[in-house]
Amino acid sequence: MSTGDSKPSEPKGDFGLIGLAVMGQNLILNAADHGYTVVCYNRTTSKVDHFLANEAKGKPIIGVHSVQALVENLKRPRKIMLLVKAGDAVDNFINQLLPFLEKGDIVIDGGNSHFPDSNRRFAELKEKGILFVGTGVSGGEEGARTGPSLMPGGNEAAWPEIKGIFQDIAAKSDGEPCCDWVGDAGAGHYVKMVHNGIEYGDMQLICEAYDVMKRVGKFTDKEIADVFATWNNGVLDSFLIEITRDILNFNDPTDNTPVVEKILDTAGQKGTGKWTAVNALDLGIPVTLIGEAVFSRCLSALKDERVKASTILQGPEVSGESPVKDKQKFVDDLEQALYASKIISYAQGFMLMNQAAKDYGWKLNNAGIALMWRGGCIIRSVFLKEITAAYRENPHLDNLLFHPFFKDAITKAQSGWRSSVAHAITYGVPTPAFSTALAFYDGLRSEKLPANLLQAQRDYFGAHTFQVAKGKGTEFLPENQWVHVNWTGRGGNVSATTYDA
Amino acid sequence: MSTGDSKPSEPKGDFGLIGLAVMGQNLILNAADHGYTVVCYNRTTSKVDHFLANEAKGKPIIGVHSVQALVENLKRPRKIMLLVKAGDAVDNFINQLLPFLEKGDIVIDGGNSHFPDSNRRFAELKEKGILFVGTGVSGGEEGARTGPSLMPGGNEAAWPEIKGIFQDIAAKSDGEPCCDWVGDAGAGHYVKMVHNGIEYGDMQLICEAYDVMKRVGKFTDKEIADVFATWNNGVLDSFLIEITRDILNFNDPTDNTPVVEKILDTAGQKGTGKWTAVNALDLGIPVTLIGEAVFSRCLSALKDERVKASTILQGPEVSGESPVKDKQKFVDDLEQALYASKIISYAQGFMLMNQAAKDYGWKLNNAGIALMWRGGCIIRSVFLKEITAAYRENPHLDNLLFHPFFKDAITKAQSGWRSSVAHAITYGVPTPAFSTALAFYDGLRSEKLPANLLQAQRDYFGAHTFQVAKGKGTEFLPENQWVHVNWTGRGGNVSATTYDA
Repeated sequence: MSTGDSKPSEPKGDFGLIGLAVMGQNLILNAADHGYTVVCYNRTTSKVDHFLANEAKGKPIIGVHSVQALVENLKRPRKIMLLVKAGDAVDNFINQLLPFLEKGDIVIDGGNSHFPDSNRRFAELKEKGILFVGTGVSGGEEGARTGPSLMPGGNEAAWPEIKGIFQDIAAKSDGEPCCDWVGDAGAGHYVKMVHNGIEYGDMQLICEAYDVMKRVGKFTDKEIADVFATWNNGVLDSFLIEITRDILNFNDPTDNTPVVEKILDTAGQKGTGKWTAVNALDLGIPVTLIGEAVFSRCLSALKDERVKASTILQGPEVSGESPVKDKQKFVDDLEQALYASKIISYAQGFMLMNQAAKDYGWKLNNAGIALMWRGGCIIRSVFLKEITAAYRENPHLDNLLFHPFFKDAITKAQSGWRSSVAHAITYGVPTPAFSTALAFYDGLRSEKLPANLLQAQRDYFGAHTFQVAKGKGTEFLPENQWVHVNWTGRGGNVSATTYDA
Repeated sequence: MSTGDSKPSEPKGDFGLIGLAVMGQNLILNAADHGYTVVCYNRTTSKVDHFLANEAKGKPIIGVHSVQALVENLKRPRKIMLLVKAGDAVDNFINQLLPFLEKGDIVIDGGNSHFPDSNRRFAELKEKGILFVGTGVSGGEEGARTGPSLMPGGNEAAWPEIKGIFQDIAAKSDGEPCCDWVGDAGAGHYVKMVHNGIEYGDMQLICEAYDVMKRVGKFTDKEIADVFATWNNGVLDSFLIEITRDILNFNDPTDNTPVVEKILDTAGQKGTGKWTAVNALDLGIPVTLIGEAVFSRCLSALKDERVKASTILQGPEVSGESPVKDKQKFVDDLEQALYASKIISYAQGFMLMNQAAKDYGWKLNNAGIALMWRGGCIIRSVFLKEITAAYRENPHLDNLLFHPFFKDAITKAQSGWRSSVAHAITYGVPTPAFSTALAFYDGLRSEKLPANLLQAQRDYFGAHTFQVAKGKGTEFLPENQWVHVNWTGRGGNVSATTYDA
């Protein structure tokens, strides 16, 4: 380590990084381990000094106290990653950097930026000859240190320059790096957003399984930990199941009881999960599971209202002994409920990305995305290997559920899934994500949904008109046109051309 | 009727209206019936002539062929309502009007504008001395003709000027007009947005009941119509239940079979329902039922994918005779499911409006809102009388569900509700709205939700820190601060202060 505040005769830095919070520090150490000389800067410069004197000691890491010094210490084309809070901070640092940059330099935003911001920054910097990359980074502090999942998108001309370091520091799955070029403009941050939405869903599903084991099965945390340990050897094998096992086994040293039971049950939600749900509504894709996961966090945050409600609102509750007779079946059913719901969530996520690719004009590579999520990141799992394989086999798969592997998996899981949800309903334990996944599954496989009645209602009260189903046309109800029926025999025959209710 | 294109010596018009689509024409006729002289204009002026020569004949209605003539024919302060497509058309007409308006004149947007647009227009026109009113109008073509629900908000100085005509033409419920001042700026359109979201929910609930009767009960449309007819005499008595009965009884004259079964089962969704769901996500309020209703429309629109899925994905299906043994219980249970879910949906809607009032600095009068929705509009029902009464009794009710009437109703409805959902799950019929309502109810009455585990996970992988539950603090886990635990024994102790995953 060294400081680089006086201008070097020849720059030594391979990679610049701004922002020394947990992700930044760990990514720097990771890159340094791979032989890259990293130049780092932080707005609060005491953090730079502290980092140099501690974690960075003895490594090829140069600390600087200004943005100018950061740029001066980097070889061209300069590659500078920002790992700062999404929003204005990103624009501020880009503006601070611009006077010192030259054409062909690369600015990489590794924060959780909203993809429309990345679309904008991509275009603004392109005009100035600077190559913008917006990259998803997932894996938390440990992932950043030992190999995160990286999802870069933006100006494709930057990819050959950064591919080496990105794929070196990224996680590997069966020898392949969990990092590939995602697509144009904000596509990298878009895919990271969907990743985070799916992460919200996965976490919610695990929470529901835990809650049902606790409230219906009356399991101890140790017993629940053992269930997650077993599941982690099966189809659910994943990082989140693994850490859930560890969390449930983690005791407070002062009294040797589980820490998790002492944690306040309120979760924040104002992040990427919400963006995913809003985007799903905008694109008209029913990503119901992430939607319910976000709303579940909202409901958790209304702690005072829930505490009050718990004294007023009545319902079933297992207060004494557990009604569960066959513990193994109970647990196996739950595993199937979790697995099937997870398949639905990923199918919905890929439906959303497919629509985004169409609407935003991106080429997204589904197999590549699944591979990027396969290792390093929070949602990494054995399951994603199957998704990678499915999309490699058929890149134009209409729906993940149509692939024989997932079709068979969900068929097999179905009876346990249905019975878990039915039990939760009977015993008054909320399983919004399990339930919505099942409703979606039954809806998707419904050739006919009751929206015909809904269209009739809209035409009845608002003259909205409707279409006639194929092969159902008559003289009164012609096919291939929008039809209005005068349902009441009263009122006008004016249809609602300019007014929407 | 008359044309008013040459400047009158003295203006005779009480009220101006731009936009002669179905809502506009009917509102004009309604106002004319109440003795107001209405001046009307439409961009395609042939519509004005046709209207004058037909529906408007013999009524105090003046048709004009320019915006200028519209203004010249109105008494001061002029009151001009736009009933045009939400979006640019509203701004365009306001800009066309401005050169002819004077301080104190009132511009009323009666379209389905998004409330942030109404906030903006309110502020822009206020600067020019023009009073902007954004008003929700509901009731479809028949409501507009005979008495709609009106939800005006904006510049309160306009209210005394327009109150007379608004309350005259509005629907009446037990003698009270279904129209009162909602609040500042875009509050009127906000409340209309939530109304429409709730309308989406109500329609979805009815569709689910119809679908279950059809697919599980194997009822004919006539039998289902009879059930809705019966329900319309009970707690569900409402406009939407009534028209559903009529729709199911409405046959195609060419073959005497129900029209509804020939309608294509795909519904549009890009409107106010989506806005409500997005706003709920933005404000962090779990308005899950409207969310599922919007997503259900999205899924209905994916007709091709569903048709394909129906040949691939397996699941239970009632193919032969109905498994229902006790038809009356089956129907009664469904009625309770619909009723309980509806209570949840309205409780969620009022939770959202309460949060909006806080966040946007509006004073919203819940009893007044319920009264406005009581008559005239699409969601009008006997049920809203109970909501009006509950909020009149206690304007500061924390949650609609805490009022004894609704608490008791939902307690009573619960067993039928739970058993309907469980049956639908068993027989593979999707009931996303019934299910999410139940999950929300069980979540709300849960003093403890599993978000403690979720917070542990976030701290484990992202050093996000968590709070300790009240009374659970130890030396290791202090209360009243954000705690980070080094779960793995590895990794740093840096918490994620600037980076959110």
